[in-house]
Amino acid sequence: MKKLKNIGELKLVKKFRDKYKSAKHTLVGIGDDAAVISIPDRKRLLLFTCDTLVEGVHFIKRDVTGFDIGWKALGAGLSDIAAMAGEPVSALVSLAMPPNTDISFVNGLIQGMNLLANRFGVDIVGGDTVSSPKTIVISIAVIGVAERRKLTLRSGAKIGDKILVTGTLGGSMTRKQFNFIPRIKEAQWLTLNGRVNAMIDITDGLSLDLHRLITESKVGARLYKESIPISIDAYRTKDPFKSALTDGEDFELLIATPDAERLIKKWKNNKMPLTIIGEITEERGKIKLVGRNGKVKKITLQGYEHFKR
Amino acid sequence: MKKLKNIGELKLVKKFRDKYKSAKHTLVGIGDDAAVISIPDRKRLLLFTCDTLVEGVHFIKRDVTGFDIGWKALGAGLSDIAAMAGEPVSALVSLAMPPNTDISFVNGLIQGMNLLANRFGVDIVGGDTVSSPKTIVISIAVIGVAERRKLTLRSGAKIGDKILVTGTLGGSMTRKQFNFIPRIKEAQWLTLNGRVNAMIDITDGLSLDLHRLITESKVGARLYKESIPISIDAYRTKDPFKSALTDGEDFELLIATPDAERLIKKWKNNKMPLTIIGEITEERGKIKLVGRNGKVKKITLQGYEHFKR
Repeated sequence: MKKLKNIGELKLVKKFRDKYKSAKHTLVGIGDDAAVISIPDRKRLLLFTCDTLVEGVHFIKRDVTGFDIGWKALGAGLSDIAAMAGEPVSALVSLAMPPNTDISFVNGLIQGMNLLANRFGVDIVGGDTVSSPKTIVISIAVIGVAERRKLTLRSGAKIGDKILVTGTLGGSMTRKQFNFIPRIKEAQWLTLNGRVNAMIDITDGLSLDLHRLITESKVGARLYKESIPISIDAYRTKDPFKSALTDGEDFELLIATPDAERLIKKWKNNKMPLTIIGEITEERGKIKLVGRNGKVKKITLQGYEHFKR
Repeated sequence: MKKLKNIGELKLVKKFRDKYKSAKHTLVGIGDDAAVISIPDRKRLLLFTCDTLVEGVHFIKRDVTGFDIGWKALGAGLSDIAAMAGEPVSALVSLAMPPNTDISFVNGLIQGMNLLANRFGVDIVGGDTVSSPKTIVISIAVIGVAERRKLTLRSGAKIGDKILVTGTLGGSMTRKQFNFIPRIKEAQWLTLNGRVNAMIDITDGLSLDLHRLITESKVGARLYKESIPISIDAYRTKDPFKSALTDGEDFELLIATPDAERLIKKWKNNKMPLTIIGEITEERGKIKLVGRNGKVKKITLQGYEHFKR
């Protein structure tokens, strides 16, 4: 019989997407950072997203604390809300855990989630706690709101837009993936101070998430190799540039905007850079990397796909 | 080190509840069928709930189809929305599955979910598909809306209210737990045609869920033993009455109302009974069972608690 590993994650998501019928209150369904639902205010839209972490796949229990996992699980959802220029409102936590899980792990998990939730004024309003035979699985659903005229989708990037990124990229295999700050405030600031045509949060690596953005926007992209901000953590890897391009779990914002120069001039955050790293082109679906000498290289995609081995 | 099995589910939920701080937009947080959030319409409230099914805990894969699991996972969430007298709007699906899961199982799961979603006009707007080392875990988050003045919480039952139940109870270990219809329409009808002071859906057995309702309402209850509608499936068990009282997964509505007689008179559904099974009393936290001969018995609680062995 055909198994999941034979089709992989992308085809599985396609199965859902194919069967999916959009109804009147759904503005954006499967395929962006969060779903967008139009009830019931005319000025504001509802955002709805979830993220799941599985022991043995997303983390090895002896390498992490409960705090790390609680923070990361909620943080990933908040990062999705940030990518839509929204404000998170409430979260539900679904926890499947073996009965012999240490209480200290659970306490840490609650603490990590709550600290992050309090920081961004998010209410953890309920959830489900069930036992699991062997594996810890944590799934967090988040709802948020966005102003209708500020909502930033993956689609919408225009030819000639500059590509911006917050923070620095790469090295996520270190501690960075567990103590990131979702860029909610930065996303708000960006949409307040300039026109943002498209936005996505980098969870699967700059190249893969940029590819998602240009695919949804039906455009192409050119990246300036020398401009990409590489994190200190990436410099500890064998190939820092590759790490910045493909590591994933940066949870930084990737933005397409016609107002790049103005935004960068106004940007007053000394601790976190905002960098122009490229531009949107008309070569649909293609990402090209331009080196210092003007040499152009096509980027082939690398990213993690679940189920495939 | 202290393990989860040492504290059990109830204490775990208490941990979450203790740390929980309600913010301005949360009207009801942890502890009802769904969270109630007040954004942004004055007449309508947002409902937010999730349910999780774990292979080996909630189902054994060889005994069920993907269709069963898809239907049940979404159905449990819709049943929560029904218990608040709400209408479901959107759902997110989080699926953790081993790579060697049969595609036919996955196809069935999507089909089961979609059939139920279409029936109630719910959009499945996204989710997360990830691999899991051994265990299938499916978690579905649902948002819905409720009219502010119709919202039915677990709290609110008044002394003298009659206790009503939809359908018949017990025997959920058979097929019944997989092909139930969430009582969304019935809940709407009830709140439209009478005053409903409190409502809950029966997921953990009549006695346990009634106990939840009276606890939140700070009242007691008297059940009329001979009136409890026992399902055909329960009659296949050794003790049909006990099955009706404690089996759980009935997904029927349990209602406290001062308008019981009027509601029953108006009820025109021949296929599904609406039955007065008791009344709300002032004996806080206590459930008493009255037999035909007037003999009164105190009910001791039995219900499934996760993690405890």
